[in-house]
Amino acid sequence: MTEPAPFFSSRWVQRPEQATEVASGGLPAGFRAAGVACGIKASGALDLGLLVSDAPGTVSAARFSRSGALSAPVLLTQQRTDPQALRAVVVNSGNANAATGNRGLDDAAKMQGAAAIACGVSERAVAVASTGVIGVPLPTDKVTRGILAAAGQLRADGDLDFADAIRTTDAHRKRVTLELALAGGSVRLAVQGKGAGMISPKFATLLVFVQTDAALDAAEADLLLSVCVKRSFERISVDGQLSTSDTIVFQASGASGVRVEPETPDERTFGEAMDAALRQLALMVARDGEGARRVGRVVVRGGDQRSAERVAHAVADSPLVKTALYGGDPNWGRVIQAVGAALPGTAPLVVDIAIEGIQVCARGAAAPHDAAALAQAVKRDEVLYEITLPGDGSAETERYFSDLGHEYVTINADYTT
Amino acid sequence: MTEPAPFFSSRWVQRPEQATEVASGGLPAGFRAAGVACGIKASGALDLGLLVSDAPGTVSAARFSRSGALSAPVLLTQQRTDPQALRAVVVNSGNANAATGNRGLDDAAKMQGAAAIACGVSERAVAVASTGVIGVPLPTDKVTRGILAAAGQLRADGDLDFADAIRTTDAHRKRVTLELALAGGSVRLAVQGKGAGMISPKFATLLVFVQTDAALDAAEADLLLSVCVKRSFERISVDGQLSTSDTIVFQASGASGVRVEPETPDERTFGEAMDAALRQLALMVARDGEGARRVGRVVVRGGDQRSAERVAHAVADSPLVKTALYGGDPNWGRVIQAVGAALPGTAPLVVDIAIEGIQVCARGAAAPHDAAALAQAVKRDEVLYEITLPGDGSAETERYFSDLGHEYVTINADYTT
Repeated sequence: MTEPAPFFSSRWVQRPEQATEVASGGLPAGFRAAGVACGIKASGALDLGLLVSDAPGTVSAARFSRSGALSAPVLLTQQRTDPQALRAVVVNSGNANAATGNRGLDDAAKMQGAAAIACGVSERAVAVASTGVIGVPLPTDKVTRGILAAAGQLRADGDLDFADAIRTTDAHRKRVTLELALAGGSVRLAVQGKGAGMISPKFATLLVFVQTDAALDAAEADLLLSVCVKRSFERISVDGQLSTSDTIVFQASGASGVRVEPETPDERTFGEAMDAALRQLALMVARDGEGARRVGRVVVRGGDQRSAERVAHAVADSPLVKTALYGGDPNWGRVIQAVGAALPGTAPLVVDIAIEGIQVCARGAAAPHDAAALAQAVKRDEVLYEITLPGDGSAETERYFSDLGHEYVTINADYTT
Repeated sequence: MTEPAPFFSSRWVQRPEQATEVASGGLPAGFRAAGVACGIKASGALDLGLLVSDAPGTVSAARFSRSGALSAPVLLTQQRTDPQALRAVVVNSGNANAATGNRGLDDAAKMQGAAAIACGVSERAVAVASTGVIGVPLPTDKVTRGILAAAGQLRADGDLDFADAIRTTDAHRKRVTLELALAGGSVRLAVQGKGAGMISPKFATLLVFVQTDAALDAAEADLLLSVCVKRSFERISVDGQLSTSDTIVFQASGASGVRVEPETPDERTFGEAMDAALRQLALMVARDGEGARRVGRVVVRGGDQRSAERVAHAVADSPLVKTALYGGDPNWGRVIQAVGAALPGTAPLVVDIAIEGIQVCARGAAAPHDAAALAQAVKRDEVLYEITLPGDGSAETERYFSDLGHEYVTINADYTT
């Protein structure tokens, strides 16, 4: 058997220094998980995941899609849990339970109730997530039977099955387990995620579950999640589409006995590892983005923060920039088009553009450059676009994005025909 | 020879009652035009167009891209013409003269100067437009020679060559000549346009030229253009991208001697014909949208106007809705996803959705419907999506959009490789 590829693979993510990857996986102390096939997926693949912390003092933090068309499990989890004290997570794939009305809310409540009974925790401590087809009633009997089956298989090394059970169009399983050496002792951090990028309301959504056995207070957990999500999942674009179902849950069991206090070196070490893990997972989502060949990174500097953010969004979401990235086409005209569209009324636009360090546009006009070197550079796995806006502003932001290719069209146009 | 297809072909455009299409073309009285090959396009195809009104009292109105990265000809035309008194239009295809800095502005000025001399009008009466590759200097010598050659070929029936000379990736020539019966006599309205939809900064842009021999005052011309552009070109989306070069020029020579006065039946007849012609041309642009199979129309009703506009934009620009349209996929989950994304924080969203008159979603949840009928309906050439937002609002808006298919990816990813 070949060794699995190391999790940290992007040159844009700094491997956290005090972290050791546990290639074989395994959850932090206090957590158990399982993944089973309950029959939603016709293929018979794993489609129901259950994860629970056995530590009563577990604290948590959560983030959800901001869509106006939220799925039933997101609505239920927001309204009927204590987001700071989530003990268990129950997830199904193959059906999003979205646009399903009151029946959908009832089904999500049944899922929550069954998981609470199966795990021996309060209903208010169970987060529910679903991903898959929109507008089709959830087969609740299958789900309930699956929850009971999963409860019998909960194991400390169940994270691999759990990570498989939440997959939809994902080409690869996405998970990591890290061992962190803190001053007070060793703690574990585990992450399982799925998503080919918020890009198909039938068969995709972003779901991310993060566990640690470090002891954190709820405010600290919430702060860590906020910072890390802003720097990772809020910076990726596959196609600029917003799922009905995105859910991220971070749980800290405290079972290691090692407390991470605010504003200590341990907090920085822990935060850096969590940040790196979520950024790498976000890049994997962009890379996995339905048929993507390449991942782009756009860094925008200068001007005011609002303009910089608009430009980064416009470039990362531009189907023209994305098709050029897919084709390995050194066509920087697409980049300046996107910049101009993001900053209406500012012409003439004194902007600098560099691709993989090669300056192609200076003060808004074509800059002489080595075309052969550029043509090579844009065929790399990861392509960096740097944009400098006019003015004295010190704004800086970045976004990561997948390309747009034939496979995206095929997956999203043809799969029901 | 087969008869050319009638211009008015969309069921969404009402054929103007008092208008007769002149299938063989021809410009309104007072106008002459020509199209020549000046050597910008390697294929030897027509790539330089010249159009002039010989009537000194010609009035005009113009609209331009709002991009921050405007092309040199747009900047020049905005800064160095009188937009109410444009006599001539000079256009080249194959090179956008965009992101070309001061050299680009000089080249556009030379183009304007050469056209002014060739047509015997003031430089301030000459609009300049360029469409094609971004970031490459314009071959000004070729352009100048082309302008002189075109000046020798100006003809009242030169509109067909002119319409061909402004094409880039357009699969079809886009033009129409209408004869309008007004109370005061007969007038002509001609339109030439190009665009596979603001969608490729290398090889596309929207250019539209409209002429009439009716007598209008400048304010009336501006008002007519405003209303018609809002209902046509500002309502289409191929890929949500904004060109550096979009230009629309409307000229009225007055050579028919028939005056169109504000708030008269003649104004309504004229306005309806111009509106229908520009809407049909806009639909042709969306239809021509690089490989598009189908055109969608989204109509949003209810709620406040701002929300309705956001929803219409989100649906029309969604790559998921567009790929579903391409695939003839009755996947309304993509539509509700786009609606939800446009209205963050409003969940649960009580929205109704109908596709081709078949209600698929009622009050935010799946509605029972005839799936076979829906599957047939979404395979039509034109597909209508109707969305009703919650609340008592009386807002209503619409947008037209092309699909997103393999041909779009091929054209935009592979053409330089």
